[in-house]
Amino acid sequence: MKPKDTKSKILEAAIVLMGRSGAAGFSAAALAREVGISKATLFHHFKALDDIPLAALDLLSDQAMDLDLPENATLEQVLEAVGGMAFGFMEERRGFLNAYFTYVSKAMFDPRLKVKMQLSLNGAKAQVAGLFAGYVDDPKQASELGNMVMVLLDGAMMHMMLLENETEIQDMWAQFSALILKEFSDENSN
Amino acid sequence: MKPKDTKSKILEAAIVLMGRSGAAGFSAAALAREVGISKATLFHHFKALDDIPLAALDLLSDQAMDLDLPENATLEQVLEAVGGMAFGFMEERRGFLNAYFTYVSKAMFDPRLKVKMQLSLNGAKAQVAGLFAGYVDDPKQASELGNMVMVLLDGAMMHMMLLENETEIQDMWAQFSALILKEFSDENSN
Repeated sequence: MKPKDTKSKILEAAIVLMGRSGAAGFSAAALAREVGISKATLFHHFKALDDIPLAALDLLSDQAMDLDLPENATLEQVLEAVGGMAFGFMEERRGFLNAYFTYVSKAMFDPRLKVKMQLSLNGAKAQVAGLFAGYVDDPKQASELGNMVMVLLDGAMMHMMLLENETEIQDMWAQFSALILKEFSDENSN
Repeated sequence: MKPKDTKSKILEAAIVLMGRSGAAGFSAAALAREVGISKATLFHHFKALDDIPLAALDLLSDQAMDLDLPENATLEQVLEAVGGMAFGFMEERRGFLNAYFTYVSKAMFDPRLKVKMQLSLNGAKAQVAGLFAGYVDDPKQASELGNMVMVLLDGAMMHMMLLENETEIQDMWAQFSALILKEFSDENSN
């Protein structure tokens, strides 16, 4: 295995492992076993065990943000793409979401982890705010709208994980999107 | 101490303890020490240790939902009261919020805890949906609006705990409230 392959495999295995049993099941031994390498090889690629889930979260978060949008996307298409990302996560990346919420709750008691999570979340927020900048004239309002979408989708993913109410949450998201479109679309028709 | 007093003190101490160091610091020994009772007395009041944080969450959730609203409150007053509850929690009940997110993330890997959290969260959702029933004619739409508010505020509390961005979140909530008022108030003026 090339070094780069091993590093990717470690990150993928970390996501699988945390999704299966939460942060509790995440140890250097379990991770090395999952990848099929020794602990020494593991620590050759990452200095500290805690760096691995964070690197994995960043990787997946970047992948998630890589939305497939047409060049002159409408606001409706942007909302659909952002919502689709969140609902796609529920289906395909449940392990990632489990890991995300595990680390959110861990970060509240771990200042070092908190700083890293803040960097990651603020990066995602800036990207989402950027998506709305073209549709809302006032930059402050565009950033508030991006923030509203991020907060709503984070809450939505948390509720779906806990309540298994994906249809209800999709209806709620559709109602929210309609509200936003009515407010910010060029055709402001009631 | 009367039995009732002891039970209340155990629940209050559980909230304090979990808020201080998360679920990791929550043990029968630590809790008994915090209340100043023996472990035997503790298990006289609660059969299992896991029942205690859940009972404490239910108690605080009931207290939170007991909103001080005038009899003919406007939709604006309802939104203010619900938002005020969430922001008040950030200031006065941070320990409760820490505990809440700790248990949300634990519940994702613990089916028994998950069922209990679902009961508790669905109860809160029904109460919030009830608050909006008088302002939105279509019952499905009222319930979707209540759900939207719950999801947004849960996401907002999570972001505030992680990012310490209370002012930003308050601005976002004000923008959201304005959108809702514009859509559902009797005076539908642009």
